[in-house]
Amino acid sequence: MDNQAHQAISQAAGPGNYTRSPKTRMAFASDATGRFFPPEGVVRARDMEQVSKVMAACTATGTPVVPRGAGSGITGGALPVDGGVVLDLAGLTEIIRISPEDQQAIVQPGVITAELSARANAQGLFYPPDPASSNFSSLGGNVAENAGGLTAVKYGVTRDYVMAVKAVLPDGRIFKTGSRAIKSVVGYDLTRLLVGSEGTLAVLMELTLKLMPLPEAKSTMTGVFTDLDQATAAVKELLLSGIRPVALEFMDGGTLKAVEKYAHLGLDPKAEAMLLVELDGPPEVLNRQSDQVVGILKKAGGSPVEKAASEAEADRLWKARRSISPAMFQIAPSKLNEDIAVPLGNLAEMVRRIKKTREKRKLPIACFGHAGDGNLHVNIMHDAADPDQRARALEAVSDVFADALHLGGTLSGEHGVGLNKLGYAGAEIDPVALDLMHGIKKLFDPAGVLNPHKAIPYPEILS
Amino acid sequence: MDNQAHQAISQAAGPGNYTRSPKTRMAFASDATGRFFPPEGVVRARDMEQVSKVMAACTATGTPVVPRGAGSGITGGALPVDGGVVLDLAGLTEIIRISPEDQQAIVQPGVITAELSARANAQGLFYPPDPASSNFSSLGGNVAENAGGLTAVKYGVTRDYVMAVKAVLPDGRIFKTGSRAIKSVVGYDLTRLLVGSEGTLAVLMELTLKLMPLPEAKSTMTGVFTDLDQATAAVKELLLSGIRPVALEFMDGGTLKAVEKYAHLGLDPKAEAMLLVELDGPPEVLNRQSDQVVGILKKAGGSPVEKAASEAEADRLWKARRSISPAMFQIAPSKLNEDIAVPLGNLAEMVRRIKKTREKRKLPIACFGHAGDGNLHVNIMHDAADPDQRARALEAVSDVFADALHLGGTLSGEHGVGLNKLGYAGAEIDPVALDLMHGIKKLFDPAGVLNPHKAIPYPEILS
Repeated sequence: MDNQAHQAISQAAGPGNYTRSPKTRMAFASDATGRFFPPEGVVRARDMEQVSKVMAACTATGTPVVPRGAGSGITGGALPVDGGVVLDLAGLTEIIRISPEDQQAIVQPGVITAELSARANAQGLFYPPDPASSNFSSLGGNVAENAGGLTAVKYGVTRDYVMAVKAVLPDGRIFKTGSRAIKSVVGYDLTRLLVGSEGTLAVLMELTLKLMPLPEAKSTMTGVFTDLDQATAAVKELLLSGIRPVALEFMDGGTLKAVEKYAHLGLDPKAEAMLLVELDGPPEVLNRQSDQVVGILKKAGGSPVEKAASEAEADRLWKARRSISPAMFQIAPSKLNEDIAVPLGNLAEMVRRIKKTREKRKLPIACFGHAGDGNLHVNIMHDAADPDQRARALEAVSDVFADALHLGGTLSGEHGVGLNKLGYAGAEIDPVALDLMHGIKKLFDPAGVLNPHKAIPYPEILS
Repeated sequence: MDNQAHQAISQAAGPGNYTRSPKTRMAFASDATGRFFPPEGVVRARDMEQVSKVMAACTATGTPVVPRGAGSGITGGALPVDGGVVLDLAGLTEIIRISPEDQQAIVQPGVITAELSARANAQGLFYPPDPASSNFSSLGGNVAENAGGLTAVKYGVTRDYVMAVKAVLPDGRIFKTGSRAIKSVVGYDLTRLLVGSEGTLAVLMELTLKLMPLPEAKSTMTGVFTDLDQATAAVKELLLSGIRPVALEFMDGGTLKAVEKYAHLGLDPKAEAMLLVELDGPPEVLNRQSDQVVGILKKAGGSPVEKAASEAEADRLWKARRSISPAMFQIAPSKLNEDIAVPLGNLAEMVRRIKKTREKRKLPIACFGHAGDGNLHVNIMHDAADPDQRARALEAVSDVFADALHLGGTLSGEHGVGLNKLGYAGAEIDPVALDLMHGIKKLFDPAGVLNPHKAIPYPEILS
């Protein structure tokens, strides 16, 4: 960036909203990946008009601009890899409206996901998508990444809850997509095109999100298995039973060992898998269905199988699942955290293949995640400072990705491609489809300034 | 089309798959709109490779090509308004796979919607989208139009069930989008961009569709109201109660009068509205929830309020709803059939405004539809041969559209824009968004041969 660019952007941002101070630049250099790319300046977003002017100035001066919400992304989507400025949207935290009559909310992008949930709950509604980061991730980021989470097996993902968007194009033009009506088929679906575009097509400024009536009750169960295949058989049986759990979580033996070391829950050291099932709905159904789930878990070989009789007990059953993230670093200092997903019928085979990769690459690999929708988190633990371990960890990533694609799956169920998976995404995306994606990027961002070189691989990355 | 174009397309189509016979051309000149635009030739689609060659020939010779499934569209999406050829996909009727383990089906575009439902039912699954045309519309058309239907209030629309697509671009390139995994966030969402694009971006050749476990039971209720506001108040109360009906249908007084005249159901001649509620789920919940629904309908002023005790009774309760289409032509020979949708909270006001339009334009207007998702069918009955009636009918359409947009709604909840609403769509679509849509059309179809001048308004139409 030359002085002219700094000046143009500073002027567009308005007094007090643009800084080049090293301290602020360092604060916006990193995200949850831990990677470090300091921007050359930081703009504090104030409102639609101001963002429009800032974007126009970035396009006019050819300055890369990276929109950023809470900075909680784990694939590097908010990192300013090409320099330029970060557009900080975290201050836009207004919940403009929650309408029980319309069953929808209108929010600014900086609203923290859990904040919307709490506010909706108070009115008898809830916002179903529930990424693990919901206490600190922002809704703008959720939409940009099409965040998933625990509840997708029953309620779907962020995409299914975005009704309309107001956004700013890289050239500064403000536009809106979608409709506040639940059904709308007028024009091409630009709303869903923006969802999951990882901040590369437009800056999301206002989101209309669908809410749902709060379920009446919940019920939580767990089953521990000393045989991995028994656990995946139970998952299959459960899904074929017609019951639709709100969460159906899986943890493998490596995960459980780490959790036990960290949280001392008294888990069986021979445990090769644990399933956690949560149901929601009217209480009389939960009684019958939770008995049914307990029956399926026991019949498949689960022992012990537990059912929470109170909220406190449910909390205890959830403890293993919730301890995973902090427990991981008990195993090794470095983690490669992938989130492949496969068609439901191939989950058992994918779990078996991950076990083989663990043996082949001689590294602790913890596998857990959302068995109910086929989305597995694969944490490849190692010491990145040891070149041999690092090399084997990267080989393990390639193994896991190859297996996921071979089984009809995807490299990422919910984290996005961002920066970290750019080198792999070309193996999944159809080449003609990729060509169309490049065309779409060029259409929205002809100057190539908006979060450049993210989300979709470019020739220079592919080669 | 000159001889060279006919020859190139005929050769690409292969022996016996291309015809210029007047009889066949006439057979493909019309759809459910009744409008008449004979194509210059008809290609019978055989497989992906053949369609790829045909499309390349159309692009090379600049020949308009209109993909057509069952021809049941009611906005003219399959009409060859610019001449050229129709690509007849109705013969591609293979259900390639139904996988209970994956909870998905893979189908060719010509499969009739109800055929997939029946086949899925036999395996304990169902395909939730249920357009009124499901007995004769094709899945390719459903996806192209993002078909809605009765069950959208609980289960969403076609868009929510399309996981992956194989398609052919106008230049003949074959590509695939999406993933067979339930969650996938790799690349821009081209799948959802194709859904609802009304056959203007690519030819859909293979669809991977999500299925769901069949609900255990169903329960049907009706309530008749002599006061319109009481009926819309009941809808509001029902939606706020937390109950999620699978169908929540509304019929106004004009609709009921036509139905009575046609089907002699013994409906109260003073009835100003009828609500039909269907619940599905586990039987023990249905018992309680259907009592709750009956309570809400009665409290709002419904009389009589009925609850079906058997499948035969449910059939009887559904009879009024199912008689609407044939009953309409008892009122007048011509119908303008619109399907606006508004945010749920504005439904009552929209219904009131439609009543005012009926009084103002002095025409019988029957209003019915999917109250649970805010989607209303507005049938403006008239005699098109009478210029004064026709003029008033068109003015009524403008009134209804203006009111829908004023109330935050949309011109079409499920029918699409096609040809019939091109002149109106510009009032809904944001001009910058429209500009992006034109860019997307140009990206997918630079030669402008694929179903030209449909779905989104072009400058020559807007002016």
